[in-house]
Order: sequence, then structure tokens, then C-alpha cells
Amino acid sequence: MEHIKRNERLSVISQILTSTPNIIHTYAEFCEKFGIAKSTVSEDIDFITEAFQKYRIGVVETLPGAAGGVRYRPYMSKEQMLSTLTDVAHKLSESGRLLTGRFLYSSDIASSPEITSRLGHIIAYKYYDNCPDFVLTMETKGIPIALMTAKALGCQLVVARRDTKAYEGSAVKINYMSGADSERIETMALSKRAIQSGQKALIVDDFAKGGGTLQGMVEMMRECQVEVVGVEVMISTLLPENKLCKDISSLLIMKSINRLNNSCEVAANEHYFD
Amino acid sequence: MEHIKRNERLSVISQILTSTPNIIHTYAEFCEKFGIAKSTVSEDIDFITEAFQKYRIGVVETLPGAAGGVRYRPYMSKEQMLSTLTDVAHKLSESGRLLTGRFLYSSDIASSPEITSRLGHIIAYKYYDNCPDFVLTMETKGIPIALMTAKALGCQLVVARRDTKAYEGSAVKINYMSGADSERIETMALSKRAIQSGQKALIVDDFAKGGGTLQGMVEMMRECQVEVVGVEVMISTLLPENKLCKDISSLLIMKSINRLNNSCEVAANEHYFD
Repeated sequence: MEHIKRNERLSVISQILTSTPNIIHTYAEFCEKFGIAKSTVSEDIDFITEAFQKYRIGVVETLPGAAGGVRYRPYMSKEQMLSTLTDVAHKLSESGRLLTGRFLYSSDIASSPEITSRLGHIIAYKYYDNCPDFVLTMETKGIPIALMTAKALGCQLVVARRDTKAYEGSAVKINYMSGADSERIETMALSKRAIQSGQKALIVDDFAKGGGTLQGMVEMMRECQVEVVGVEVMISTLLPENKLCKDISSLLIMKSINRLNNSCEVAANEHYFD
Repeated sequence: MEHIKRNERLSVISQILTSTPNIIHTYAEFCEKFGIAKSTVSEDIDFITEAFQKYRIGVVETLPGAAGGVRYRPYMSKEQMLSTLTDVAHKLSESGRLLTGRFLYSSDIASSPEITSRLGHIIAYKYYDNCPDFVLTMETKGIPIALMTAKALGCQLVVARRDTKAYEGSAVKINYMSGADSERIETMALSKRAIQSGQKALIVDDFAKGGGTLQGMVEMMRECQVEVVGVEVMISTLLPENKLCKDISSLLIMKSINRLNNSCEVAANEHYFD
């Protein structure tokens, strides 16, 4: 009978932890939910920790002390991450994705809940130790991947806009250069209510070519006295090599275009895990 | 020993099902993963099904036949859903959220991964039987809640834009009336690659006042010969009662504004579950 009840608890605790990445659950929460002693919760958590580790599906950690408890962080092995990135790169390299103007059609990938959630897990894993207060992105296409990264980090998403909006209140507005080979000035606005000085931001976007928008976000954070812990994109073009924003980390690299079958060569960034 | 292995499997299967809502996993997948017989997988699934049901955290269903397997759907009881909506309504009713121009500041709520994921579960639960092919939203603020709804439904997200974009290829572009009391004409564009005629769409957005944008999306779907299975918003204003889009279903109702403490009265829509 006891092991039947344990079965029940393990299923439920696994569901709760998986649904709330990087959120700390106290042992008391589970004691109350199941009417069991803390030592029994502790044994349950040990079982789950080992199972998740063995099958490489996540890291379950117990934090001691008054603010302690247990939390789950989605985890993929390096092989799993590389295989996920290679799959996405293959999709993006399909013929017909090259649009007029040398643009790559990637909106379906960039807004797929399944793909963005996997990519969000990969990005988040690098930043757990930095504890960002929010993930910052610029509207529009990067929102899904930024949201899924924020979900995995258990933090807030903040969206910068091209212009101020009446329904977002007072805003900070800056000018930035749109790209490395362009003299065009663009504007970026951020609601003052969305962030506080002294916080830490992780910048996430879907695409980097000149790096202007990313650099704009870096400058916006400087203006708001927010520390940037990293700059992450889904796809970065190989050229221009010198982008306006330094230290961009990219999951995928767009290497070249092929006009014969209207495709782009996109590959996993094998140095992502270095 | 056998029940230790079962413990392990139950934790892992629960994690896999929870991470991939509404996606069917075959029994063969689990047989291979754990090196066990189909009958043992079946017993494991029975344990998880009962545990999830008992603690009201989700519905695990077994589908017979060649295309069969097991899938998980996030589920909250009516009480849990109402309590979630009431919590969000309280947050939105905080003093100071009323902006100049009678706008409600809701961007922090509308882009919270935790809140949008709960609200996405609530919306998705109504539409599992309709099997939408995608969730449609209009940029920008509704994207997080639409994405989380699509994630719960295991389907794609499609984002309509205010204008065509070179990086989205050929588009369908329509004009629509911006609101019930306005003569202003707005435009909406949708990449032709994003959808196919004959599909089914669920429309999800963050806010409805006049209902013009929602009606624009309905007309866009008609133009694209896509069936609309529902129109869902996070917050709808009580007035105007006659909105341009009929049959809007809203999680929360914005009832009135209070200039004394710059707040809005927002309440859970108690008829949402009727």
C-alpha cells in the first residue's frame, strides 16, 4: 500500500516541478498536500532527482535553509542540445525559404511552441547562475523564444517596442543604429513600469545580422541602469563578422544562400556549448 | 526492486507527458526507453492517470488503435480556474494601473510566463475537442497568452501583423474598422506561408474594447478560408456592450475605472465556464 501511495506522489510531484521550472517549492507544500512527514517528502524528492538525472531530463535540486525547498531546471545533455539545434537548422535550410531581398522565412519556427520551448531550455541553462530578473526582447518575432526562455528561468519577460504606446505609460525612448552597414536611425521605447534600476537582464532575440537592434537593447539597459548578463539569438548571420553588438551568442548560424533552390544554409553553432 | 524501477519510470513519464501537452506518445516509445513490456507501460500509465485525476492536475488519456498512445492535457477544476482568474483580476485592479487616456497597464501580466501559462491552460481546455490547427493573434501584446494557449493545445502559433514584412514573404492584407465607436480604418497582414485554407483557427488576444481587431482577425480567416472555432481574450471591457466582434469569450471583465486611486475594477468572468 505504501509504495502505491509513493507512486501517486512521485507522479504528482514530477508534474508540479516540471510545470514550474526554476521555482522553489517548500517541503512544507508537499507535506500539506499529501499529509506526510518531511522525511517522506525528502525520500520522494531523492527518487525523482535520481530518475531525472538517470534519464537526463532535468536537474532537481534541494536548497537547504529557511528559504529552502526543491526546484527543477530543464536540462538536455550536450548531445541532445546539438541534435535539437541540428533538427531546427535542417528545417531552416529547406528549399523555398529564401525570400525576395535575401530574407530567410523563419516565422513558423520562431513561433512554434514546441521548438521555442526547447530552444528556451537550451538558452536558460547557461544563465541559471546569473539569476536574471527578466528576459528582454524587441517586438515582435523574438517574443516566443524570449518568453520560453523566461519561463524556463522562472523570471519575467519584458518587451521593448518600436515606439511608445499610450497603454504602457511613461517610457524611456532611445535612438539606435539599425545595422552595421546602415546609417539608418531607429527608435526603441520601453515602459518605465516594466523594469527597475539595479536589476539584471538577459537579452534574447530571434535574429542578428548587423546586430543593431541587439546593441540598441544593450544601450537601453545601460540607460536604465540594468546589468546585461548575456545576449542570445536564435539565428545569427555569418556575415558581417563585425556586428554592432559584441558578445552575441547564437544557437544557429546562417552561413550562405543558394539561389538555385531558394534556400539558406543554416547550421547548429557547434561552439555554442564552449 | 521492481517498485523502485516503477518509481523511476513514473517520475520520468510524468515529466515527459507534462512537458508536451496534448502530444500523443506511443506505448512503444516508453517500452523502448525503459526496456519493458507494453503491459508494464500500461500499468504505469494507469497509476499516473489516477494520480493526476485525484490531485486534479491534468487529464491523461489513452487512445486505442494504430495512431494510439497516451497524451496529457493540463486541467484545473472550476474552483482552481476561478481562483486563478480572481488572483489575476486583483493584480489588475491595483491602484496606479490606470494610465492617462483611460488605459489599463497590463503589460506585466500579459507577458508573465507563469500567468500566461495558467491562462493558456484555461483557454485551451475549452478547445481540445475542436482540434484547432493554430492559434491566431495580432501583434504584440497578445503573443504570450496566445503562445501558451498553443503550447497547451500542442498546435502552432500564427501572428498577424499591422503591415506586411519583407521577411515574411507574400501576404494577405485586409482593412478593418479599429473599434465600435471609431471610423478609423486599420490594416492587418498575414504571411501566406503561415496558414492553409481548410484549417481551423482559435483566435486569442489580450484585450477587447471595441472588438475591431478581433473582428479583423475573423475577417482575415474568412478571406483565407479558415474556420474560426473560437474568439478568446484575457480582458474585455464591459462597455461598449455591442462589440464589433460577436461571440467574444473573455476570462476577465474590466468593469469601471476609479480616478481617485487611478485603478480599474477588473473581475473574473464568472460566466466563462458556462
